[in-house]
Amino acid sequence: MAFAMTDFDATRRLFDLPRGVIYLDGNSLGPLPRGVTERVHRTLCDEWGRMVITGWNRAGWIDMPRHLGDRIGTLIGAAPDTVVLGDTLSIKVYQALAAALDMRPDRRVILSDTGNFPSDLYMAQGLVKMLGDRHELRVVAPEDVARAMDGDLAVLMLTEVDYRTGRRHDMPALTAQAHDLGALAIWDLAHSAGALPVDVTAGKADFAVGCTYKYLNSGPGGPAFIYVAPDHADVATPALSGWLGHAAPFDFEPGYRAGAGIDRMRVGTPPILQLAALDAALNVWEDVDMADVRARSIELSERFIARVEAGCPDLTLASPRDPDRRGSQISFRFAHGYAVIQALIAEGVIGDFRAPDIMRFGITPLYLSHDDIDRATEILADIMQTRKWDQPVFHTRQTVT
Amino acid sequence: MAFAMTDFDATRRLFDLPRGVIYLDGNSLGPLPRGVTERVHRTLCDEWGRMVITGWNRAGWIDMPRHLGDRIGTLIGAAPDTVVLGDTLSIKVYQALAAALDMRPDRRVILSDTGNFPSDLYMAQGLVKMLGDRHELRVVAPEDVARAMDGDLAVLMLTEVDYRTGRRHDMPALTAQAHDLGALAIWDLAHSAGALPVDVTAGKADFAVGCTYKYLNSGPGGPAFIYVAPDHADVATPALSGWLGHAAPFDFEPGYRAGAGIDRMRVGTPPILQLAALDAALNVWEDVDMADVRARSIELSERFIARVEAGCPDLTLASPRDPDRRGSQISFRFAHGYAVIQALIAEGVIGDFRAPDIMRFGITPLYLSHDDIDRATEILADIMQTRKWDQPVFHTRQTVT
Repeated sequence: MAFAMTDFDATRRLFDLPRGVIYLDGNSLGPLPRGVTERVHRTLCDEWGRMVITGWNRAGWIDMPRHLGDRIGTLIGAAPDTVVLGDTLSIKVYQALAAALDMRPDRRVILSDTGNFPSDLYMAQGLVKMLGDRHELRVVAPEDVARAMDGDLAVLMLTEVDYRTGRRHDMPALTAQAHDLGALAIWDLAHSAGALPVDVTAGKADFAVGCTYKYLNSGPGGPAFIYVAPDHADVATPALSGWLGHAAPFDFEPGYRAGAGIDRMRVGTPPILQLAALDAALNVWEDVDMADVRARSIELSERFIARVEAGCPDLTLASPRDPDRRGSQISFRFAHGYAVIQALIAEGVIGDFRAPDIMRFGITPLYLSHDDIDRATEILADIMQTRKWDQPVFHTRQTVT
Repeated sequence: MAFAMTDFDATRRLFDLPRGVIYLDGNSLGPLPRGVTERVHRTLCDEWGRMVITGWNRAGWIDMPRHLGDRIGTLIGAAPDTVVLGDTLSIKVYQALAAALDMRPDRRVILSDTGNFPSDLYMAQGLVKMLGDRHELRVVAPEDVARAMDGDLAVLMLTEVDYRTGRRHDMPALTAQAHDLGALAIWDLAHSAGALPVDVTAGKADFAVGCTYKYLNSGPGGPAFIYVAPDHADVATPALSGWLGHAAPFDFEPGYRAGAGIDRMRVGTPPILQLAALDAALNVWEDVDMADVRARSIELSERFIARVEAGCPDLTLASPRDPDRRGSQISFRFAHGYAVIQALIAEGVIGDFRAPDIMRFGITPLYLSHDDIDRATEILADIMQTRKWDQPVFHTRQTVT
């Protein structure tokens, strides 16, 4: 790290972090970057308030999904004009999968794994039903993905980094295998974009989707993005054929004609307040080298694991021990993990819990220091050693954890 | 209007209207209500900034789509727990149509009209293709809808108020006719909700959808809403089966199980900044009686028509002359309508244009006065009488008009 170009003390100052809190949940919802509030205020007052409808042109609202797509493209190795923002990740998964299946009409298997985010699987289940149950959604254990691919494969649909364990798939290798079998690959980058170096071009992903409110810090409910490989962009049929994906949206023709390239993946009117927040949030990446982020993520993660394992013998590492096989989160298993997380939150250390027994801790170098890791692991060790978690108040379930 | 309860001078003060502008485009994008900026600021700083992930529970973010659904429900005659916010109107149209077709498996016709917003038709076209081209999307002239219904009808899918002409369908009568034939009815309320009294319960709509950024003033890209009649709520299959529509979204089960009632129409993570803006925007309705809004809308509209017809003989009324057959906008046809609208905007009167020749003027009593109508029609008459519109600068097309 001695020669790192990225100044992490400087990036930390770009966030308005809650006082008295060590925030280890940036893998679920990133914190508020400085400048976002001012930018959204400007969008509200100077744009919507003053320009009203004319803001679509004068403030450039109509182009924001494409403009921000290009900004995110630089973080995931996508060429200009191949990424667009909009909707939610679930909707973008549906679009990508529908388009991919349409490109492989003679194949019937969609392969995914149990490490995929459930909503991706749910959207696929809904799509399969819509398409008349002609397809099989094959869901295997993450370690069985490579050997579950065969000549029936239409689409490999995976999340690169497992939301529970942080386990990371080998995107280029699995994609190459899918391609060798004549299939297509869709990658969900929800826990990758902004977390580690991603290169959808070199990795030859056919489609990629992701969300912006985790490691990209766009705020609660920030829009999703979709990438379509340039070769497919004019071929992929948009199942959700909304007006802003039309070749001439403002001609109001009666029949749908898909727009050129990535534009056809647009659907309805984009959420301008959320896009404005995202635009300001992306400024934090301006002087950041993703290789530095990755190096520091591994350093902080290794420190976190070592200290938890030393201080909390009852916890079992759920993430891969090899840093190359992880994203940027560390998970531990414990039967009473829910209560431990509640006890941690009560002491200002925010992680989260995923059933049945996973405690998740996001490692986000842009705003986490070595001191944060040390302090968080001390508090965790104290909670475990004194069984502080074993109080009724920490066992009361809330809707979202 | 003598005994109207609603104080329209007071409601006008609830909006932060741009100075020097007469805004006749609230049917496209409502202006900024006072209180929205403060509310969004609070959501950014006090909720996201201070609570970060815990805002989903502590600030009630997770419940906003349902809470705001109930607030909108009161404006459209929907019972509590029958409306939910999310996504865009195009997505909600797709959900409603997919669910309705699934409830009528033996029928093959979707009937709509040329007055429907193109995106509704585009989404239907995409859905029909997805379902294997087993259905016919029959699109007739608005006046032919009633006689185009027959025993093949699966779903009647209409926008109550025509986005170009303001013509209004008779929702209860057409719905009753569809029901008599064993079909279902989906109503798009994009130009109805907040514009005139709507009663989806009395009108027996099976599904209704709408957007919030027009007459409900939620700001650019505000989320859409969907209503499902209580009888159908536990039967309708959600085609877009995202995690927040799951019966137990935070159990992260591998298989989708549709949630109870309207919850199943939720898809992905809701856009909290846009929902916060909507929540504040809905406060303007607190002391408003929709019958008063309707009476004043008709009064202002009649005044607008009379003055335009008196001052601009070259313009042809495109809206129905009978106020009962209109929504809350007035449209005129003119071959050079685009240039006239640009000339109007240059003089601070904001209306908009829809190809090929329609000039649209939204009549929004909450913030428009008699003086606004008089002044706008004077400026329009001057532009027409002096042919001010016939300058090259007014003929240059922009992306959004």
